[in-house]
Amino acid sequence: MSERPHTPLLDTVDTPADLRKLKQEQLRQLSDELRAEMIDAVGTTGGHLGSGLGVVELTTAIHYVFDTPTDKLVWDVGHQCYPHKILTGRRDRIRTLRQGGGLSGFTKRAESEYDPFGAAHSSTSISAALGFAVANKMQQRPGRGIAVIGDGAMSAGMAYEAMNNAEQAGNRLVVILNDNDMSIAPPVGGLSAYLARMVSSSEYLGLRSMASKIARKMGRRVWGGLEKAEEFARGMVTGGTMFEELGFYYVGPIDGHNLDHLIPVLENVRDSEQGPVLIHVVTQKGKGYAPAENSADKYHGVAKFDVVTGEQKKSKGGPPAYQNVFGETLAKLANDDPKICAITAAMPSGTGVDKFAKAHPDKAFDVGIAEQHGVTFAAGLAAEGMRPFAAIYSTFLQRAYDQVVHDVAIQNLPVRFAIDRAGLVGADGCTHAGSFDITYLATLPNMVVMAAADEAELAHMTYTAAKYDDGPIAFRYPRGAGTGVEIPEQLEQLEIGKGRVVREGSKVAILSLGARLEEAKKAADQLEAKGLSTTVADMRFAKPLDTALIEKLMRSHEVVVTVEEGAIGGLGAHVLTFASDEGLTDSGLKVRTMRLPDIFQDQDDPTKQYDEAGLNAPHIVDTVLNALRHNSTGVEEARA
Amino acid sequence: MSERPHTPLLDTVDTPADLRKLKQEQLRQLSDELRAEMIDAVGTTGGHLGSGLGVVELTTAIHYVFDTPTDKLVWDVGHQCYPHKILTGRRDRIRTLRQGGGLSGFTKRAESEYDPFGAAHSSTSISAALGFAVANKMQQRPGRGIAVIGDGAMSAGMAYEAMNNAEQAGNRLVVILNDNDMSIAPPVGGLSAYLARMVSSSEYLGLRSMASKIARKMGRRVWGGLEKAEEFARGMVTGGTMFEELGFYYVGPIDGHNLDHLIPVLENVRDSEQGPVLIHVVTQKGKGYAPAENSADKYHGVAKFDVVTGEQKKSKGGPPAYQNVFGETLAKLANDDPKICAITAAMPSGTGVDKFAKAHPDKAFDVGIAEQHGVTFAAGLAAEGMRPFAAIYSTFLQRAYDQVVHDVAIQNLPVRFAIDRAGLVGADGCTHAGSFDITYLATLPNMVVMAAADEAELAHMTYTAAKYDDGPIAFRYPRGAGTGVEIPEQLEQLEIGKGRVVREGSKVAILSLGARLEEAKKAADQLEAKGLSTTVADMRFAKPLDTALIEKLMRSHEVVVTVEEGAIGGLGAHVLTFASDEGLTDSGLKVRTMRLPDIFQDQDDPTKQYDEAGLNAPHIVDTVLNALRHNSTGVEEARA
Repeated sequence: MSERPHTPLLDTVDTPADLRKLKQEQLRQLSDELRAEMIDAVGTTGGHLGSGLGVVELTTAIHYVFDTPTDKLVWDVGHQCYPHKILTGRRDRIRTLRQGGGLSGFTKRAESEYDPFGAAHSSTSISAALGFAVANKMQQRPGRGIAVIGDGAMSAGMAYEAMNNAEQAGNRLVVILNDNDMSIAPPVGGLSAYLARMVSSSEYLGLRSMASKIARKMGRRVWGGLEKAEEFARGMVTGGTMFEELGFYYVGPIDGHNLDHLIPVLENVRDSEQGPVLIHVVTQKGKGYAPAENSADKYHGVAKFDVVTGEQKKSKGGPPAYQNVFGETLAKLANDDPKICAITAAMPSGTGVDKFAKAHPDKAFDVGIAEQHGVTFAAGLAAEGMRPFAAIYSTFLQRAYDQVVHDVAIQNLPVRFAIDRAGLVGADGCTHAGSFDITYLATLPNMVVMAAADEAELAHMTYTAAKYDDGPIAFRYPRGAGTGVEIPEQLEQLEIGKGRVVREGSKVAILSLGARLEEAKKAADQLEAKGLSTTVADMRFAKPLDTALIEKLMRSHEVVVTVEEGAIGGLGAHVLTFASDEGLTDSGLKVRTMRLPDIFQDQDDPTKQYDEAGLNAPHIVDTVLNALRHNSTGVEEARA
Repeated sequence: MSERPHTPLLDTVDTPADLRKLKQEQLRQLSDELRAEMIDAVGTTGGHLGSGLGVVELTTAIHYVFDTPTDKLVWDVGHQCYPHKILTGRRDRIRTLRQGGGLSGFTKRAESEYDPFGAAHSSTSISAALGFAVANKMQQRPGRGIAVIGDGAMSAGMAYEAMNNAEQAGNRLVVILNDNDMSIAPPVGGLSAYLARMVSSSEYLGLRSMASKIARKMGRRVWGGLEKAEEFARGMVTGGTMFEELGFYYVGPIDGHNLDHLIPVLENVRDSEQGPVLIHVVTQKGKGYAPAENSADKYHGVAKFDVVTGEQKKSKGGPPAYQNVFGETLAKLANDDPKICAITAAMPSGTGVDKFAKAHPDKAFDVGIAEQHGVTFAAGLAAEGMRPFAAIYSTFLQRAYDQVVHDVAIQNLPVRFAIDRAGLVGADGCTHAGSFDITYLATLPNMVVMAAADEAELAHMTYTAAKYDDGPIAFRYPRGAGTGVEIPEQLEQLEIGKGRVVREGSKVAILSLGARLEEAKKAADQLEAKGLSTTVADMRFAKPLDTALIEKLMRSHEVVVTVEEGAIGGLGAHVLTFASDEGLTDSGLKVRTMRLPDIFQDQDDPTKQYDEAGLNAPHIVDTVLNALRHNSTGVEEARA
């Protein structure tokens, strides 16, 4: 454990009220201390490093200038909020980030009045800030909506929809575009900042409305010649015109690390009668921490690391991550099948599509944060004979639900959905959990829904999906490392709608879907030890169900328990529905369904999360024993 | 029945191949005949009139210039596709539009190779066309993607996401922006069209990339003075810059009714090496039919009408539409509650929000086709103390599913979802059916899900939602007219999670959710006539379930049947899950769940659709009788 950084000024700041007592010239030192504190904290906990480092000055400046929490500050995605948490009364808990019982890695309403809107998915901030602004306007009380949104998040349709509606908020809405794309050279320097200040001054905002006016005005003030001014204005206007067409006053670009530029611009915007305003701020991811500056991608999300060397704690080796098994399998399959292609929505490495793209660069499409487009684009590809794999996390596929229904399922187009992060996901918490996909997909006609019990199954399912041209097919798998099983060289084309019995018994049947299989097998061992002969089936498919297998097991066992890593409405509901349709439960069969509980679970170690969910081996055993004990009057029988 | 229009030229055209044999100067006559035929057909069937009339020339020109069906023409939404259907081999069936067994009112892959991509929801066309373009590019075979999209559909984020990705298609992607907003003055005339032709010529596209270049080039060619040219160029560039920033070559605006302008522009674009191209076409909704031109909104979707007078067949009076009961109830409630506000996504009259807006214009928000933004905006409003009602059709709420999960449910914010068009919807077919909302909402923690059995219940539920500040709450109701029940002056605040018994019996219990209640009551009458004492409960809530009522009924009846207007995973699944959790089905209770079938049902009269679905009274009776007959061995017992 390295010594904590020396932060005498930061030690005096518990909330933004304390911050506002400082002189503007002290903010540089405060920001430096804030940065040091954040690096040290993330070194301890792991988490999102680069994004927070990029907005240290911006965080300081916003809280210094605006009246938070009356003004509602909404951080898009929220992964850049660590400095914000430190400045808003949560410094004492900052080293509990992303841990069970600790601070969330994102903004969260329950944590602080300074988090008026939680986030974790991208591109929601402008809509939310607009809601705050308009609500306060309607209620005739103070309170702006301030959204800070990255340039990546601006690629999502939702941000565009919000901008298209922004005008109604007037000067109560401020959008800060945090542009940290390293490919865009930051237009820094005093002149640029001066121009931005001028552009943002109330007087100026009142006059500006046409490109020619900007050109003329700036020409007179700054340059001698009209020509040069026009050239400049055109460049600036080109950059901002899109926002202006949507009704914004565009200000920028300005250097987001220079407090002497940021503060006056924010003050001008704050005091302006005009709006909404979009402030274009240029920042550097990882700013101020050399290892992160030099390799922004590697320091976006980090493991615990050594603050001095920047060295991240290595993972211990072990089984490959599911995402990589998927990406590598798909790459291999595509060697023999030129129709295979892959789509990711800004998650190339998270989904393993990077592995595929390395081998087949022309067949890989990163559409940006644009799941809606990604899915319908895949539908178009499928309609024209390609075999597209849309690799999207379970939680993000929610963004494209209508496209899955309307463009894929109704048209029965063979889009393959590779659904990563299914089930509980650990440190990212409930916003990233893949809890609902079985339910929201299996309710759709034409849809095939598989879940992989381990990484070998994932490889088989990837292969099966590649071979399946009859309609949409989805396969889900967990976050993280596989179980360590060998992945066969020769992959198997699974029969659609058929499960497999992995253990034969006679009294209890456990129907498992997905990666709970290991727990199901453990439970079976424990049940056998109690003299209860137990069958374990890996259902493989939530839809179509293996009705023959289910019927057979129901007719030959006393208790049937389903287990899945999903919320109500999934495998269990489909099994119960089939069984009641067929009258299989009419006479004394005991069926129980085990699923995620009806709560949003906070971040924790995944095993602990599944303990909380009641989906580990001991819970399966208890469910079976309780069912056996239960009699029809609702009275518990004596322990068997 | 009026006489069919005289269409000698159109009679020679069955497919676009025939069309292409005509001389360009014949296309005016062809378009006139096409327009007459369409007016006559829609007079017979009802349907979308104005949109189709607006694109008669555009449809003719596209098929004349482009190589359909090798070039893939995708009509956004598809409600403007009637002229397209007439020209692509479906004229003989055009008077079956939107009827059971007839042509769909939208594009549909199963109908024709000229419909490469079905639609009905807005804003999917660019993504799909991009998929076609890229698929053909990858497979090195001919075939462009051509999307025709209205200016309204451009407000959806999905269209923006697609445009943001368009560059990869190169000249294989053509987007035609069909701008029929009456508030935009159409910039028609020879000069404008000439300029557009020039802008679209290959040579020109090759050179243009900067505003200054456009200005200089156009200045020399068209005007004498640089100044005027710059002024013009700036205007044009301002109009197009947004598209250009997204990577398009922008062409236009041009008059979409002038074939002499349209054809050469399309030819230039077709022959260009550069792309993607966005052609900005200005059209008039209802063009060429005076009653529709003069009142574009009233002729967007029409009932059958008299072609000569334009008079639409009146509806017969009768009970009010559900949407109006909702809108008027909400307006009344808002008189006493200044926190109530309403959000619609471009459906003010369809949702009844227009009635609310009339009384409370400052509290009504039409966000455009932007359901994602609409829901998160509502979440922001709710977080700041307002009581927002997001009034969105069931099928369109799919567009905002992630926002419902991530921004509303996880944060437990009291957004009220008024879900119209729940269940089957008749002439609009499967794309507009509200089949999945019970399932996709009731699986979410924190969510309350109600369904109204009739319009009085809807009024009570609107009131209940207004009073409920503890979290999100949704209430669904059908398309069309209510049942005719009286709506009480004094509304009732329903107890959350409590159903009501509407008829007491002892042997059979029917648990109904939503507007099947009437059929459930009819079924009960028929069952009583057979000597089977029948209870009917209106569950009101799919979530939280009235577990006390369910348990009571299960313990006291032999057969329990659930009925709902939704797909698998809804009320039935939740009832079965609860019952199996509690062991209520362990010993011989017969439970059956009736729900929408696992198919996408085509358009038809709603009663017939529910017949096909097996959800009318006779089906309920059959289900009960079959259950009573069924024994545990799976063998049917002798008829009771």
